[in-house]
Amino acid sequence: MRFDTAFREELARLIGWRRDVRRFRTKAIPESEVQNLLRLAQLAPSVGNAQPWRFVRVRSPALRTALADHVDAEISRAGEAIAPDRRDAYAALKLHGLREAPEIVAVFCDEETVAGGGLGAATMPETRAYSVVLAIHTVWLAARAAGIALGWVSIVDPAHVARLLDVPAGWRLVALLCLGWPEDESEMPELERLGWQDRLDWRANVSSR
Amino acid sequence: MRFDTAFREELARLIGWRRDVRRFRTKAIPESEVQNLLRLAQLAPSVGNAQPWRFVRVRSPALRTALADHVDAEISRAGEAIAPDRRDAYAALKLHGLREAPEIVAVFCDEETVAGGGLGAATMPETRAYSVVLAIHTVWLAARAAGIALGWVSIVDPAHVARLLDVPAGWRLVALLCLGWPEDESEMPELERLGWQDRLDWRANVSSR
Repeated sequence: MRFDTAFREELARLIGWRRDVRRFRTKAIPESEVQNLLRLAQLAPSVGNAQPWRFVRVRSPALRTALADHVDAEISRAGEAIAPDRRDAYAALKLHGLREAPEIVAVFCDEETVAGGGLGAATMPETRAYSVVLAIHTVWLAARAAGIALGWVSIVDPAHVARLLDVPAGWRLVALLCLGWPEDESEMPELERLGWQDRLDWRANVSSR
Repeated sequence: MRFDTAFREELARLIGWRRDVRRFRTKAIPESEVQNLLRLAQLAPSVGNAQPWRFVRVRSPALRTALADHVDAEISRAGEAIAPDRRDAYAALKLHGLREAPEIVAVFCDEETVAGGGLGAATMPETRAYSVVLAIHTVWLAARAAGIALGWVSIVDPAHVARLLDVPAGWRLVALLCLGWPEDESEMPELERLGWQDRLDWRANVSSR
């Protein structure tokens, strides 16, 4: 199994172009594309091969509105933890596309799955949720390669979302995702473009022992 | 920014071929490749664009041995939590390549970073560690595209590794990684090949509301 230089360059370009998107067009994603993304997610790495990701597609308009209202309220509340001199900038950010994006997917970790036989999760039980993150990133990159943007909404109360969506007791929310066609494209993260947070030099995050 | 069908097919092949590898050749990875992977990691998504990943390259032979000894001890201890009828299978698994892999990287989350201004991390502080997982997956895919295999070691005591590597107090271990040239290649996860855990049907992990 070999990958050529052209593919590696394209992959680097995809990694650089990925983006977290909050501005979507409402046009639907073809069902075959959505299924293709969820099928690829199943190939993500997972601790003990436990595959603990659980994707819940939100198709009820009432549930979508309840989620968007909840996130708006949490965004207001979380604003109290933002430094006072940054609150105006915070209030101006658009932080989710839950009302517009054609596909809303809540992603849970099944903390009680028997798959994997507990391998690797005894010392670091958080690796189960980490596995779910790996599946989400798989969807993210495959979606972007298909021109479909993804936005990860994390300003939520995970327990509230679990109750709203009536999932089994052992499922813990990892992410609420918006998927759809982006309104516009940019190589620069929106938070960087708006002056919220610049890219750091990668060398500053690497050290040796 | 468009990606063609050929690229998308190659990306799907990469996702399917990625593997978690524990059997490495000792031959070194060129330094430029290692740096290229860490540079790409910096382009991963992160909550509030906080970029909280901290990569620590373990180059001291004494620290490498101390890590390998620690993981061996934790693997024995974690065996007690494995179902009795699976303990022989567990004992037969090779779970890390810490003694052979040419590059060992411990990846931490800086829980006290001021980058990102706390955006998105007030309601779900675990999204900081999730961001680190996204950076690791970025390295994983880019490495595999270059023929370099990665193994994620999670049977460790995170606090012990942090002490061994003498990292700042606010850093939490997310993963201990082995990187190197794989001894052999397989499309099937080692845990599946050895009968530990099969792939599940992706449809079983998807539902709608």
